[in-house]
Amino acid sequence: MKSGIGDLALFGGPALYDSPRPIGQLDCPPVEDYLALVRKSFAARWLTNGGQWVETLEQRLAQFHGVRHCIALCNAACGLIMLMRSLPGHAGGEIIMPAFSYRGLPHFARWAGHMPRFCDVDPASHVLDPAQVRAAITGRTALLLAVANFNSAGDVDALCDVAREHGVPIIFDSVYAMANTYRGRPLGGSGNAEVFSLHATKLVNGFEGGYVTTNDDALADTLRWQRNFSLPALRPQGAMDGAVGLNAKLNELHAAMALLSLDRLDGVIERNRQRYEAYARICAGIPGLDLVACPGDPGERSNYQMAVAAVASPWPLTRDQTVRLLRAEGAAISGYYAPALHRSGHCPPDMTVPTLTVSEQLAQKYVQLPVGELVSLADVDQLGELLGFVAAHGAAIRERMEVPA
Amino acid sequence: MKSGIGDLALFGGPALYDSPRPIGQLDCPPVEDYLALVRKSFAARWLTNGGQWVETLEQRLAQFHGVRHCIALCNAACGLIMLMRSLPGHAGGEIIMPAFSYRGLPHFARWAGHMPRFCDVDPASHVLDPAQVRAAITGRTALLLAVANFNSAGDVDALCDVAREHGVPIIFDSVYAMANTYRGRPLGGSGNAEVFSLHATKLVNGFEGGYVTTNDDALADTLRWQRNFSLPALRPQGAMDGAVGLNAKLNELHAAMALLSLDRLDGVIERNRQRYEAYARICAGIPGLDLVACPGDPGERSNYQMAVAAVASPWPLTRDQTVRLLRAEGAAISGYYAPALHRSGHCPPDMTVPTLTVSEQLAQKYVQLPVGELVSLADVDQLGELLGFVAAHGAAIRERMEVPA
Repeated sequence: MKSGIGDLALFGGPALYDSPRPIGQLDCPPVEDYLALVRKSFAARWLTNGGQWVETLEQRLAQFHGVRHCIALCNAACGLIMLMRSLPGHAGGEIIMPAFSYRGLPHFARWAGHMPRFCDVDPASHVLDPAQVRAAITGRTALLLAVANFNSAGDVDALCDVAREHGVPIIFDSVYAMANTYRGRPLGGSGNAEVFSLHATKLVNGFEGGYVTTNDDALADTLRWQRNFSLPALRPQGAMDGAVGLNAKLNELHAAMALLSLDRLDGVIERNRQRYEAYARICAGIPGLDLVACPGDPGERSNYQMAVAAVASPWPLTRDQTVRLLRAEGAAISGYYAPALHRSGHCPPDMTVPTLTVSEQLAQKYVQLPVGELVSLADVDQLGELLGFVAAHGAAIRERMEVPA
Repeated sequence: MKSGIGDLALFGGPALYDSPRPIGQLDCPPVEDYLALVRKSFAARWLTNGGQWVETLEQRLAQFHGVRHCIALCNAACGLIMLMRSLPGHAGGEIIMPAFSYRGLPHFARWAGHMPRFCDVDPASHVLDPAQVRAAITGRTALLLAVANFNSAGDVDALCDVAREHGVPIIFDSVYAMANTYRGRPLGGSGNAEVFSLHATKLVNGFEGGYVTTNDDALADTLRWQRNFSLPALRPQGAMDGAVGLNAKLNELHAAMALLSLDRLDGVIERNRQRYEAYARICAGIPGLDLVACPGDPGERSNYQMAVAAVASPWPLTRDQTVRLLRAEGAAISGYYAPALHRSGHCPPDMTVPTLTVSEQLAQKYVQLPVGELVSLADVDQLGELLGFVAAHGAAIRERMEVPA
């Protein structure tokens, strides 16, 4: 434990952790279980796409989400890009998306030939605010992209109503919300489609990978065609006009890993919940540190995938100072969705920057805390002690951090 | 062997092959060698991008191609798309590409926000004809995309001269030409960049995967940034303006396999050469079947990756009839680059269709023959006997094929 502020890693002391404690899940099934599946793929000489593991994975995930179709993909980004191109049937419009969200989203809109149009979020759920979306829709709107966060899916029904009223397709980026519910049903079946990730840092680890869930048969056929170059000879009946082809197939190696990780899901969520509750106890004892409630909506199921704390007075440091201090100690963390997308270098250079008050405020407020397989309960306790130490020596630490170098 | 034309699989006889004989390489290193590498990745807990195998692979491939940079990617398509977006620095132009080439290319141009502009090829090399390219360049030209074929890289120097004269970037899709040479040097260092594939069907098998080679430091930095979402905080000095971010990283599982396959390259090429020469002997004995010369340019090195035969009188069947007959026998083959891209369902619906005589003729002429790890020399000999049988009973077979069903 630190005995004085000179012991903080930021000021030259030894780091709290001897190796980085990340913010990703990094679930790791036993290596020999994995290798046994890979051996079967080699024996069948089927290693790329559409083999036994991809097929099984798609069936199991469709069942898990309670939807008609799961389309496995090389990553979630490609899923979002293909949907942004297929569903509107054309390029050259605007995609309405939250300003408080993942930094990749504006780029994905541009790959699909659209411009991002940033929209403000609800201050509680951090999900697109239906009233703001309604106000932002114009004749140029090609698609609505809502993001279901780890803490809340937001007002899904109201968002779908707005989409329906205006005849605009709506998709949900639900990569942080796998296994969460909305009104008691698992996410996956809302809007035209939802997108999930199988990246190692997410709940189910396929190394890399992603998938789309949908109840729309024609869309599912289109995506299966589109992920394999939209070969003209294989064009399905009812294929959508905008379905420009890509190589976005998931292969057997990834699907095999994802299947093993999916088997472990309940255990992973339970481990997450234990860490989350340890953080909750810590934050309850430190004024100015406020853990985002999980689940944010009473009665819903949560994956407890992230631990995100709001920072405010009397906590002595700014959010950015807090991140800097904890990073020095070996917590491989970052601010949560900062900066807001419309204020970031990700914003297209030719875009008019709107004022989106809620997103701007949220983007200055939150710090992510280490979670996942590589973070033990003892690690969390150690971080709790450190946070208590910072709270107790706040003024001195802040002063020393603010000395010009 | 077939004793009468009723024995042909097309007419209800037993197929020549009991399982499909493909046209892909499908190199398969020993499974335990592969699993040993995966075990090391699990032990290091580094399974996604930028780990030891990706780094080693990039170094070895840069050395192999004699270039400063190799940037490993999740597939070749993403490499082409990112280059088409970065190098021009803007969207909304035209990409000049061969009309006689791979069906995915027009789609890739559209993902990058450009339109394909199809251009005719040289009748011998099947590569973009420099004179036709010069005539096709306009103020809207964003980039030249030349494709190096398995048989020839074409007139690389002349194509680069045209690009330089007009101040237009040029890239080479060299996925079928890995290990081939141009003027004695390995492909990889021409134009602004070249793109290769690590798909299982290509020379080096990484299951899926691809890479870009370049001698341009700023472009290499840009691509490394772009493949990982172009995160604003990681923007390299001199990054190109058009570098819209994507998730296009290669992971350790793929890199490990590609490294093992790369070790086996000489053996794979030697096996390819033996099959190729067996096909050459067969075709030499059958009038009207003419194997495309490999290497097509005297003194160059060839990977012998494909066996492609031109079909002409006195061979009794059309190309499409030949493909149909061989497919029924278990040869999982297709026509070679048919139809021409400007005549295909891949052509954007709003494009004016040009007349490109050479491409149109070539697209009716060639049949691919089975190659790769799953095709033995005995398989090739059996196919040779079948082709001899077809030549001997040509009139009767054609007549029966042309009977309306």
